[in-house]
Amino acid sequence: MSTKPTKTLDPVPNPHPEREYEVEIRCPEFTALCPKTGQPDFATITVRYVPGPKIIELKSLKLYLWAFRDEGHFHEDVTNIILNDLVEALEPRWMQVEGEFNVRGGIYTNVRVEHNPEFKRARA
Amino acid sequence: MSTKPTKTLDPVPNPHPEREYEVEIRCPEFTALCPKTGQPDFATITVRYVPGPKIIELKSLKLYLWAFRDEGHFHEDVTNIILNDLVEALEPRWMQVEGEFNVRGGIYTNVRVEHNPEFKRARA
Amino acid sequence: MSTKPTKTLDPVPNPHPEREYEVEIRCPEFTALCPKTGQPDFATITVRYVPGPKIIELKSLKLYLWAFRDEGHFHEDVTNIILNDLVEALEPRWMQVEGEFNVRGGIYTNVRVEHNPEFKRARA
Amino acid sequence: MSTKPTKTLDPVPNPHPEREYEVEIRCPEFTALCPKTGQPDFATITVRYVPGPKIIELKSLKLYLWAFRDEGHFHEDVTNIILNDLVEALEPRWMQVEGEFNVRGGIYTNVRVEHNPEFKRARA
Amino acid sequence: MSTKPTKTLDPVPNPHPEREYEVEIRCPEFTALCPKTGQPDFATITVRYVPGPKIIELKSLKLYLWAFRDEGHFHEDVTNIILNDLVEALEPRWMQVEGEFNVRGGIYTNVRVEHNPEFKRARA
Amino acid sequence: MSTKPTKTLDPVPNPHPEREYEVEIRCPEFTALCPKTGQPDFATITVRYVPGPKIIELKSLKLYLWAFRDEGHFHEDVTNIILNDLVEALEPRWMQVEGEFNVRGGIYTNVRVEHNPEFKRARA
Amino acid sequence: MSTKPTKTLDPVPNPHPEREYEVEIRCPEFTALCPKTGQPDFATITVRYVPGPKIIELKSLKLYLWAFRDEGHFHEDVTNIILNDLVEALEPRWMQVEGEFNVRGGIYTNVRVEHNPEFKRARA
Amino acid sequence: MSTKPTKTLDPVPNPHPEREYEVEIRCPEFTALCPKTGQPDFATITVRYVPGPKIIELKSLKLYLWAFRDEGHFHEDVTNIILNDLVEALEPRWMQVEGEFNVRGGIYTNVRVEHNPEFKRARA
Amino acid sequence: MSTKPTKTLDPVPNPHPEREYEVEIRCPEFTALCPKTGQPDFATITVRYVPGPKIIELKSLKLYLWAFRDEGHFHEDVTNIILNDLVEALEPRWMQVEGEFNVRGGIYTNVRVEHNPEFKRARA
Amino acid sequence: MSTKPTKTLDPVPNPHPEREYEVEIRCPEFTALCPKTGQPDFATITVRYVPGPKIIELKSLKLYLWAFRDEGHFHEDVTNIILNDLVEALEPRWMQVEGEFNVRGGIYTNVRVEHNPEFKRARA
Repeated sequence: MSTKPTKTLDPVPNPHPEREYEVEIRCPEFTALCPKTGQPDFATITVRYVPGPKIIELKSLKLYLWAFRDEGHFHEDVTNIILNDLVEALEPRWMQVEGEFNVRGGIYTNVRVEHNPEFKRARA
Repeated sequence: MSTKPTKTLDPVPNPHPEREYEVEIRCPEFTALCPKTGQPDFATITVRYVPGPKIIELKSLKLYLWAFRDEGHFHEDVTNIILNDLVEALEPRWMQVEGEFNVRGGIYTNVRVEHNPEFKRARA
Repeated sequence: MSTKPTKTLDPVPNPHPEREYEVEIRCPEFTALCPKTGQPDFATITVRYVPGPKIIELKSLKLYLWAFRDEGHFHEDVTNIILNDLVEALEPRWMQVEGEFNVRGGIYTNVRVEHNPEFKRARA
Repeated sequence: MSTKPTKTLDPVPNPHPEREYEVEIRCPEFTALCPKTGQPDFATITVRYVPGPKIIELKSLKLYLWAFRDEGHFHEDVTNIILNDLVEALEPRWMQVEGEFNVRGGIYTNVRVEHNPEFKRARA
Repeated sequence: MSTKPTKTLDPVPNPHPEREYEVEIRCPEFTALCPKTGQPDFATITVRYVPGPKIIELKSLKLYLWAFRDEGHFHEDVTNIILNDLVEALEPRWMQVEGEFNVRGGIYTNVRVEHNPEFKRARA
Repeated sequence: MSTKPTKTLDPVPNPHPEREYEVEIRCPEFTALCPKTGQPDFATITVRYVPGPKIIELKSLKLYLWAFRDEGHFHEDVTNIILNDLVEALEPRWMQVEGEFNVRGGIYTNVRVEHNPEFKRARA
Repeated sequence: MSTKPTKTLDPVPNPHPEREYEVEIRCPEFTALCPKTGQPDFATITVRYVPGPKIIELKSLKLYLWAFRDEGHFHEDVTNIILNDLVEALEPRWMQVEGEFNVRGGIYTNVRVEHNPEFKRARA
Repeated sequence: MSTKPTKTLDPVPNPHPEREYEVEIRCPEFTALCPKTGQPDFATITVRYVPGPKIIELKSLKLYLWAFRDEGHFHEDVTNIILNDLVEALEPRWMQVEGEFNVRGGIYTNVRVEHNPEFKRARA
Repeated sequence: MSTKPTKTLDPVPNPHPEREYEVEIRCPEFTALCPKTGQPDFATITVRYVPGPKIIELKSLKLYLWAFRDEGHFHEDVTNIILNDLVEALEPRWMQVEGEFNVRGGIYTNVRVEHNPEFKRARA
Repeated sequence: MSTKPTKTLDPVPNPHPEREYEVEIRCPEFTALCPKTGQPDFATITVRYVPGPKIIELKSLKLYLWAFRDEGHFHEDVTNIILNDLVEALEPRWMQVEGEFNVRGGIYTNVRVEHNPEFKRARA
């Protein structure tokens, strides 16, 4: 099998578009490079969303995240980029992306980015 | 004993229908098949509800969940189906079904579906 | 010592009735019988309340819960019964009783019953 | 169903009597009475054994342990009694019974009793 | 060193009185006597507060809590007493005292008492 | 993809047959049927071994364990059968199979079976 | 009830003196005074033993440990004293006393004292 | 490499200033001196913020926190100081600094300080 | 900084070569490619050793492990290769390398490889 | 109070020199400097020993460990140095010093050094 990583996200139709429900997808195997030192960074990426017309298929998401393996990205930036790409591809009612980055220099960093926060607030 | 799995849910009368109380039922032994590969999927299914006129009896729920063993279902779809079936059978004031699916391809998926979310919001 | 279990609850006066404060009492040693099979059931019973004029004394509560040992009760029913008995005896401002029942047939059940939920909502 | 607790143990033949293998059975729902106060005691009973010609069937063990529910026993004594009964019924190559008793008076007690300890030592 | 326990609380000035911030102080080594049996009771006392003009100094609090060692107190009463003493000494904007008492007779008790709950509600 | 479960194990050559090293493979998704009631049983199967000329490939092991899904087996028996099949296919220097079965009737069962225990003892 | 703490240990006869079995008793509520500062120290005391002709009764042990409440003792010393007292009273085949003392000055101390270590070694 | 600790904070531009997102940075290796005794104190410092025009770079934050190593500070004071310095350097939309200080005299202290709490309340 | 990964290991002299002591180094950020599918694999690599004339410097080890990032390796093989490389570079008295590989297809794999096991056995 | 850190260890006489018992002392607040970068390192130092004629007093040990705060040391070296100093001061029957160093560059290091290992082996 020769699957290749790609940033193309292939959504599938949401089987229950009439209902507001929540999906959480956790990927503990994200790795990219540090843009300053070129050394590998590691993170757990968690995507939480209330689907709109489309949902993400797991294999497609895996290939998308894998495609960052040889790219250099800052923590705050890459978490925002992943959110932007997923929002464009899925048109969700609400989405949050969280990146929990491994300790560097004795410091743990966690970035949490949200699309359409009003959706959640109106239902709190 | 030769119990057979069946999707017929046999509710019993709620012994305290006048009160709004909450029941949580957790089933860590749910298994179905992947509709794409035919391979087994595993999940913990949790049902949380505020009963209306009827409550679910444990043996009946066990047989209902067992009946998915040889069927192919996507994660998002099967969680919605279980909610729909239980809502139809129990007519609850409020219900939530959560499916925590085992890791596949390095990714953990969790689907949380709710019936009558207004009930909870009005009491928050 | 020949203490005998009894369902008589002997409250004592609340030493600070002017203040709204909260007490949580957790009893991991509750056991009753299944009314269908006659087999023992086990649960942790947790009582949370904001006292009114009276508070429960621990020994009295212990004897009360012990008195269920040889009785048959369904999960949803016995949790409501305990709440009703304690509310009648203590006249609390607010009370919640939670029963976390041991796994049966691969399923864990948790029942949470509340007296005067408006008290908490007005203070949320 | 009207199963009644009984101290009769019904072993079944060991399906692999030619091999020395180990079985561990953990029962967190053991309860008996304190012979001094008559109050309920609770424990987790764990049976570890290397079967000889017979193995214990789970339902039979459940009924056997249930039969202690209304009897008064000291911690050290009841753990030895369970070992003796199981050794007589099963003729195991080696057996250990451990009773982990719930806290009483701020003190946790654990009793571990062994049949044929030479078996283990010769294989250490 | 011959420090003696005393119920005199010696606050120090709050170095940042202009800001509403929160302090949590947890003391897992509280012990008093049961007023009915004279036997020792043990608890973790946690003080959470938003300081007003004064903050408590740790050594002073340690001596204050130590002074309960030879006194008899009921759970609900002693938690209220500690709150009252600290409120009088510190004049906090808000304060909560929680007592988590060790298991007695198979029952765990937790008492949570609050001063000026309106402060928190207005900021929720 | 239409992979079908099968009990045929396809080992691959051990890349370092000259060295005694240990492999542990844990499969938390084993399910079979209870031969008495026909109801599903669930277990975690762990294989620990010191390879001889061959090692097991993960996909082959996954298909082998999957093939038990519709068969009825007792706990003690199926653990021995898995060991026997793997020993025949791999000719390991040493092997242990452990089955940790989910709670049934309030009882947890664990079966641990070993091939060539003398290997380990001689190296202890 | 006016039980008074006392260092008199009242053993009872071992109900199974013919068998070598092990008892572990854990007391998380031990407190004494620091002989240098007079301040309270806290510890968990664990007694593990293989009984000889006598076993310790829990209430007697509770009163014995309680009697240290107003005495000053160093960590290493008090652990040895408890072992010596228990060995004299019980004449055990083997005994170990472990004191896990709460953190002082950022340092956790643990003292483990053993009577007749040859007993264990001969059976290892 | 001869990096020197300094209290100069060097922020970098926020790559996504248009979006309100949250960053959490946890530093378990903070140490300062006690201003009363001169002895070392240890804490975990956690910074949570919603960036404005600037974000903090990890190395710069590490050097800033390191610069406290030889200074004397009270718990409540140093937590406020860190917040004030970071707010001045970063101009965040919202910020919280939490200091979890190691146990001293059997007491654990936790200080939580917030900048612009209205930001969070308006979005709750 | 433009450090490049390389498989060259640069040991430094052992500062205490006269003593047999043990070093454990755990690297949770190992990643390589699956030689069959080309997809990324993740593992925690732990090196335990008793140094001989040389010890490994952390930066050198980090670069060595990083150099596997774009190579394809089977689990059993890569663990043996790392051991062989480290033994050649460090000439340790004893060494063990353990690879704990992330779940694939519902199966967790752990490989543990040892150099000079006689060293440990002679000291057990 | 103006205690100053010093490397002078002041032992006190062992109160029970006739018995072989074990003391474990854990200090999670050790910090020194990296000799290469000058940056702070953090570790938990654990001392386990069987005392000879002398035992270490906690305050003396605290001051001794504090004295490393401004010194540069490699992990393997400093752990050996602490063992050597303690052995010289205490003349223990047996001693082990373990240093668990915080993660650096994604790698956790643990060094375990032992004095008179024959003592333990003869008693295993």
